[in-house]
Order: sequence, then structure tokens, then C-alpha cells
Amino acid sequence: MDEAGRQGRYSYGRIDNILHEKSRLGILTSLYVHPRGLSFNELKELCGLTDGNLSRHIHLLEDAGLLAIEKSFYDKKPYTHCKLTGMGRDRFQDYIRELEAIVQETARAESESPAMTDEDVALS
Amino acid sequence: MDEAGRQGRYSYGRIDNILHEKSRLGILTSLYVHPRGLSFNELKELCGLTDGNLSRHIHLLEDAGLLAIEKSFYDKKPYTHCKLTGMGRDRFQDYIRELEAIVQETARAESESPAMTDEDVALS
Repeated sequence: MDEAGRQGRYSYGRIDNILHEKSRLGILTSLYVHPRGLSFNELKELCGLTDGNLSRHIHLLEDAGLLAIEKSFYDKKPYTHCKLTGMGRDRFQDYIRELEAIVQETARAESESPAMTDEDVALS
Repeated sequence: MDEAGRQGRYSYGRIDNILHEKSRLGILTSLYVHPRGLSFNELKELCGLTDGNLSRHIHLLEDAGLLAIEKSFYDKKPYTHCKLTGMGRDRFQDYIRELEAIVQETARAESESPAMTDEDVALS
């Protein structure tokens, strides 16, 4: 059985590797909260990325069908507009639900565990 | 300025790359919810990983100071026990707080956005 097919309570096989990368997570969150899309420069500022890195990540997301890139001219300058596709929104929502489940799992563990001793916390 | 130093609302620079990988996230969650630690075989089952991959990830986490590995013999067989260190628990809690903030950010965006039209959602 390959890795992806293995089942385990914490195997997290459903976590989407394309989304589970912090630069792309920033891009997708920015676009998710701006459903009409953002310009390349707006994205660059919100995500704190260089031109080269932002370009690489948005093209990877475009190739995966999660993001649509429109190139045009505005005031005679090239203008790039990025927007999530319908599939991009769906996949992002699924991913966020996975993160939420992890957060809840750890919160539950904290509320259920008895107070830990020093011995529990730190292995000498 | 390097990438890590750039500030942007969605730059997620504080997300810890060592933790932000789904196999390691599974290992850390498993150990977090089992503060007394787990055997190699228990971890393997919970995380759905092969021996080779689990071994690679736990040694990486050990090198980063997040996890402690104790090797011993049990019934004449080698026995490996893994446990989060105090720093591992702290870093994992910080990471979970980052995930929680992302989940809340997207939930807020959903509650604030007006109902979206088809045009908003899908770029033709």
C-alpha cells in the first residue's frame, strides 16, 4: 500500500499538498478574503513575497486550476489580476476545514488531559 | 530585505516550516495528544507512515529539539519511544494558534462578504 492509501487517525492524507505551503497559503487566503481578486502588486504586498516567488507560486496554482490569471494593460502598463476559481474556493474551504479539525483535536486533548507533571512535559 | 523579513498581512512568516509539513504535523499531533509519548509502532499506525518515512521525520524533529527519542529493549526486542520535548509542545502550541488565526480570518471573511454572484466566484 502506498503512503497516500494508508489510514491512520493522524495520517492527514486529505491535506492538500498544493495548499499546505505557507507562501501559497498566504496567496490563497488573500484571494479568498477578496473574492473579486487582487492585482499582482496587491498580492505581493499582502503576502510579503518577492516578484519571482509570487510569480512562481501563482503559476503553480494556476496550473492546478485553483487560480485564474488575467493579463491586461492599464494606463499602458502591464497589469496582472489574480482570482480564485470556483474549484480554488472549494479546495481552500476543504483545507480550512482540515486545519479547523486539527485545532479542535488539540483543544480537546488539552481539556481532557489531566494536568501534566514536569516529568510528562520534558524528557530529561 | 529577505523573504522572511517581509511583512504582509498574509505573509505567514511566523509559520514554522518544520511543523508545516503534513507527515510531521501528524507525528506532532499524535504526540501532543499523548503527552507520555508513543512507541515507534504506535506512531507508525496513527500517522499511516512507512518505517522509513517515520524514521526520517522523527530524526529531523529530534535534531530540531522538538522530540526526544529513547531507544531500549523490551522482551529482547529493540523498542523506540518518542515524546515531545517542552520546546516541542510550546512550538506546536504556537503553530496551532497560527492555524486557528487563519481559520478565524477566513470565517470572518465569509460572514462579512455579501452573498457572491457567479461572476465573483468563477472567472470564465
